[in-house]
Amino acid sequence: MTSTLPNSVDPAALTAALDGRWGHVRRDIREHLHEPEFLPVYGETVAEARERVTRMARKLAESGRVGLGFPKEYGGEDDAGGSVTSIEMLAFGDLSLMVKAGVQWGLFGGAVQLLGTQRQHEAYLADIMSFDLPGCFAMTETGHGSDVQQLRTTCTYDPATQTFDLHTPHEAARKDYIGNAAKDGRMAVVFAQLVTQGKSHGVHAWLVPIRDAQGNPMPGVTIGDAGPKAGLNGVDNGRLAFDHVTVPRDMLLDRYGQVAEDGTYTSSIENETRRFFTMLGTLVRGRVSVGGSASSATKLALDIAVRYGDVRRQFSAPGADREIVVNDYLVHQRTLLPALATTYALHFAQEELVGTMHDVQAAEDLDEAAQRELESRAAGLKVAQTWHATRTIQLCREACGGAGYLQENRLPHLKADTDVFTTFEGDNTVLLQLVAKGLLTGYRDAFGSLDGWGKVGFIADMVRETVLERTAARGLIARLVDAVPGRDDDVPLLDRGWQLKMLEDREKHTLEGAIRRLRKNAGTSGMAPFDMFNDVQDHVLRTAQAHIDRIVLEAFVAGVERTTDLQARALLDRVCDLYALTTIEADKAWFLEHGRLTPTRAKALTATVNSLLQELRPHMVTLVDAFAIPEDWKAAAILREEGDRQEAMAARDTELRTGGKRGTATSVEVPPAQ
Amino acid sequence: MTSTLPNSVDPAALTAALDGRWGHVRRDIREHLHEPEFLPVYGETVAEARERVTRMARKLAESGRVGLGFPKEYGGEDDAGGSVTSIEMLAFGDLSLMVKAGVQWGLFGGAVQLLGTQRQHEAYLADIMSFDLPGCFAMTETGHGSDVQQLRTTCTYDPATQTFDLHTPHEAARKDYIGNAAKDGRMAVVFAQLVTQGKSHGVHAWLVPIRDAQGNPMPGVTIGDAGPKAGLNGVDNGRLAFDHVTVPRDMLLDRYGQVAEDGTYTSSIENETRRFFTMLGTLVRGRVSVGGSASSATKLALDIAVRYGDVRRQFSAPGADREIVVNDYLVHQRTLLPALATTYALHFAQEELVGTMHDVQAAEDLDEAAQRELESRAAGLKVAQTWHATRTIQLCREACGGAGYLQENRLPHLKADTDVFTTFEGDNTVLLQLVAKGLLTGYRDAFGSLDGWGKVGFIADMVRETVLERTAARGLIARLVDAVPGRDDDVPLLDRGWQLKMLEDREKHTLEGAIRRLRKNAGTSGMAPFDMFNDVQDHVLRTAQAHIDRIVLEAFVAGVERTTDLQARALLDRVCDLYALTTIEADKAWFLEHGRLTPTRAKALTATVNSLLQELRPHMVTLVDAFAIPEDWKAAAILREEGDRQEAMAARDTELRTGGKRGTATSVEVPPAQ
Repeated sequence: MTSTLPNSVDPAALTAALDGRWGHVRRDIREHLHEPEFLPVYGETVAEARERVTRMARKLAESGRVGLGFPKEYGGEDDAGGSVTSIEMLAFGDLSLMVKAGVQWGLFGGAVQLLGTQRQHEAYLADIMSFDLPGCFAMTETGHGSDVQQLRTTCTYDPATQTFDLHTPHEAARKDYIGNAAKDGRMAVVFAQLVTQGKSHGVHAWLVPIRDAQGNPMPGVTIGDAGPKAGLNGVDNGRLAFDHVTVPRDMLLDRYGQVAEDGTYTSSIENETRRFFTMLGTLVRGRVSVGGSASSATKLALDIAVRYGDVRRQFSAPGADREIVVNDYLVHQRTLLPALATTYALHFAQEELVGTMHDVQAAEDLDEAAQRELESRAAGLKVAQTWHATRTIQLCREACGGAGYLQENRLPHLKADTDVFTTFEGDNTVLLQLVAKGLLTGYRDAFGSLDGWGKVGFIADMVRETVLERTAARGLIARLVDAVPGRDDDVPLLDRGWQLKMLEDREKHTLEGAIRRLRKNAGTSGMAPFDMFNDVQDHVLRTAQAHIDRIVLEAFVAGVERTTDLQARALLDRVCDLYALTTIEADKAWFLEHGRLTPTRAKALTATVNSLLQELRPHMVTLVDAFAIPEDWKAAAILREEGDRQEAMAARDTELRTGGKRGTATSVEVPPAQ
Repeated sequence: MTSTLPNSVDPAALTAALDGRWGHVRRDIREHLHEPEFLPVYGETVAEARERVTRMARKLAESGRVGLGFPKEYGGEDDAGGSVTSIEMLAFGDLSLMVKAGVQWGLFGGAVQLLGTQRQHEAYLADIMSFDLPGCFAMTETGHGSDVQQLRTTCTYDPATQTFDLHTPHEAARKDYIGNAAKDGRMAVVFAQLVTQGKSHGVHAWLVPIRDAQGNPMPGVTIGDAGPKAGLNGVDNGRLAFDHVTVPRDMLLDRYGQVAEDGTYTSSIENETRRFFTMLGTLVRGRVSVGGSASSATKLALDIAVRYGDVRRQFSAPGADREIVVNDYLVHQRTLLPALATTYALHFAQEELVGTMHDVQAAEDLDEAAQRELESRAAGLKVAQTWHATRTIQLCREACGGAGYLQENRLPHLKADTDVFTTFEGDNTVLLQLVAKGLLTGYRDAFGSLDGWGKVGFIADMVRETVLERTAARGLIARLVDAVPGRDDDVPLLDRGWQLKMLEDREKHTLEGAIRRLRKNAGTSGMAPFDMFNDVQDHVLRTAQAHIDRIVLEAFVAGVERTTDLQARALLDRVCDLYALTTIEADKAWFLEHGRLTPTRAKALTATVNSLLQELRPHMVTLVDAFAIPEDWKAAAILREEGDRQEAMAARDTELRTGGKRGTATSVEVPPAQ
């Protein structure tokens, strides 16, 4: 393949394409929040890390950059998209600080804002923003992490005292992994089953003081420490248990459900499950932030591995004076470049998601269908981005060899800190199930329910057209797909329409197959309802994965389309090819099995990917430059040192080879690189 | 599929099958070395971890269990296999201690033993065994990790003083990542280019004092600290640089090369490269230990995840009182069981490798071909076991959700401590290349050289029969394969011969394809030698991977064959099926592309794997029980606590459901699991 790419592309033009709708937020943070003090510190104790991160959280609050998502009347900017973008940018620095900020201003502040009402906003939002009121988001229990609808903590209203009684009945109901709980939290938004007049109304949230002004636990509150973790040691995760703690009536965050003085329960949403998932749905920002932050960590890891691989040399080539640059090895390219392409693809998908989230949340009226679709998209992209982060940071660590294992080179922290992303803010497997359920029921009745084991019969019986909703750049994508001629075999592998069609076909076929199998199981007498679903669980999750792959590619295609700089666009176009083809290659067995690829074409696919790697090789550093990570935050020792070391070694080798010091025993015969 | 498995299998019978030739060593450590003090400690500082691990290393020395591999005349037992097995067992405890022991008694002591001669053995081995002489293995340099033949440190002989001059010419030549260097090491085995009489003779090793009795660096020696790492914080990795350090002539470890008083160099191996790789080859024990230790860590991670998954419940099933046990989910089984099966397969392969190593090293005369094959096998299994560990520990962490992220549950330490295994003792990608080169040249001229870029022409021209050497249980495997009828499509997927044949076919075809492509490139005028090889690097490494998969399956088959207990054998047989079929499934695209599987059969493969999962589900806990990890070392908090928590919750739920406490507001309407 002869490359049609320009010899060099200005990274700034790529950055402009990546920055997107909240480019101003990104630029602001690059310019004003890049100090090295926002970097992780290595070799700290857990106590030191927590102390420092608390200090930095205050500093962040003082910077005035934490209020983006809050209402203007309380000093915020009503900019949900901006708030998520700023968290994503923070993730280039210390991830403990990012998570601490996410807990304080995203989860805790967000819950008060979105589940509370005006009197609570007036009483608390300003102090939350200033970090004068550090708080917790106490949802997860030791016994219920994924299935939060089944929380066991109860909060029971007593009209006689006009207070609630908040209680932890057993250890499995203890709140666990709660950020800000072990050290800083003064209050917590506590999720529990609301009981009044002898009837439960499902999970609601209360604002509950957990520590007094001196930092001592409030009466009846037991605070534990989750102890050292794999990473994120600057975040003080803890455990909370409540022994019949009295909570005043007005501390119920009562936007979606109210309890009158006499104990009468009212809500604008009658159905309990629907109400629960509407409440949860408003909290989607956390999930979106985690996905975006995972991608930031991925970008940083790739930045380190790609730059190191561009100066690091190992093994000599016949006839060459110097050893081979590691990035020149095909297998190294095979490792880093597809990961880089996927990172680009996910960036565009995340950018689009943030925009959608912003618009849905800024709308006057709640559009339930739009919120449902947003949740599904947020779940899917959180899964894709966090697993991609886990895989990519791992391979970047390995690509840097022993150096990648040293904390001074940042990769260990990136790995350890992001590792929990795949299971917090929704376990990835459970989220995939949520996405799948949305697809199976066409969003209509998904309600965001995470279990999906309930109504197999319903799913199996329903009439569903498996017409896929295209997501981004609908018109363009339809045109590209429609232009693909019938006989796929003749279409070039680099035809964008063909690539899109392949991912569409797979999704549609997989989905239809899943529905068919579910129907069959539902009609099998004697099969337990659980088994009906469990029998096809792997198939169902593959459907979700296929869906995510497609919407990510569509977002990438739309992103390329929006790029105005022609050279940047040409390069992005090739990166998009690499993403599409390696995504197809990764599931080549499926395409072969289902007659979408002939063996000959499957082999050609591998060859084409290798050609793309060769074409993109000269642009590897440009592609990480374009991430525009603040220079101060790219603080890996190997990036400072390795280039100079290689030059010093080369100079010495040349001296020996050219006999500059001939005559001394050491210099003559030390074998040159050969 | 109707299960042919017994309802329950005695784990002890499985353990007996796994324990193998060094079962006595395993049992001894289980009985005598299982104290909790050998466990990792969480929340320590780096300094505390190092202090503790040094203390425990002394304790280990006092236990008398570190001398297995040393000669009997110096207090050892001449039992190389036993020494590797004991390291593997230690890896169930604190991995920092395992690595510290590996550095002291494996690498440092092993180098003195295997590269040194009698006067050095007499002078040092006893103190090395007792840990009175802590030492380093100073091979790797900052600039050369994989290509150690190109080390830049020099050691130049001066007949006038009858001493060597050891020198680090620039930073890239600094010794790096050296265990025992930052704190404890008194001496180091330093690898450098030997120069005498104006001529270099390649890399040799010297025993060099680096600290005096007070612990201060010796004159001319600069000692640095590699600082905090991702894990293994109990190991004091450091950096060493030498500024014209004088080393007495008799400190050259001179088994393979001697320098006379007048500077005359002699060696029994004339060819420099051959000599270098023979020296390295004697050090294979380190690589074998790393592979085995990686598998121990994997077993422990699986033990935790499987046991937790057997008591942990999440999400309710229609009509059931209690929530679903996590291990009952198909996708959870899909995650854990194939990993478990692969762990079994690798165990048998490792067990066989240790036996081979023991026999090769115990032989009177050096069998060069056998040593070469041993090195290749050790490299391949180190790759397979360490990557399997990285993947499996990660998925076990995720399978335990948030609990898996807490250090009290051990998985974070397992992950962080083993993470470097994929790149130390040989970078996995480089080792795969070594394996591939051995296959391409039929071992004849491999010399263990790690680069493989040199003689493409030679490889391309040579005549090579690609007849695969079967490794384990040759006769049995030949019979099984030969019994497979010509038309594969009719053979049951559970036919062991067919499974073996599939992996053989793939290896042979891939290897032949690689040779064909290399020949073609070698005949392409104008192609740079580096490009000739680099163009097919991915193909070449796939060949190595295919080879490893096959020898691992053969070892598993041989292990099943050796198992005498019929019930244990029946279960192992099924686990072997799962390993074989998931290995084929993982590369299904290749088998489809090359006409080894029809699409119909490929789909049947997936269904058969799912049936195997169902069949093995009741035996999951038995399969981890059989690893017989010392009880004290299975110290994950969730394993102590989760069962009781679930019972307490169930009791409370039952109470509420049956109205035992009907009448109070809290008890009536808290929604039961439904």
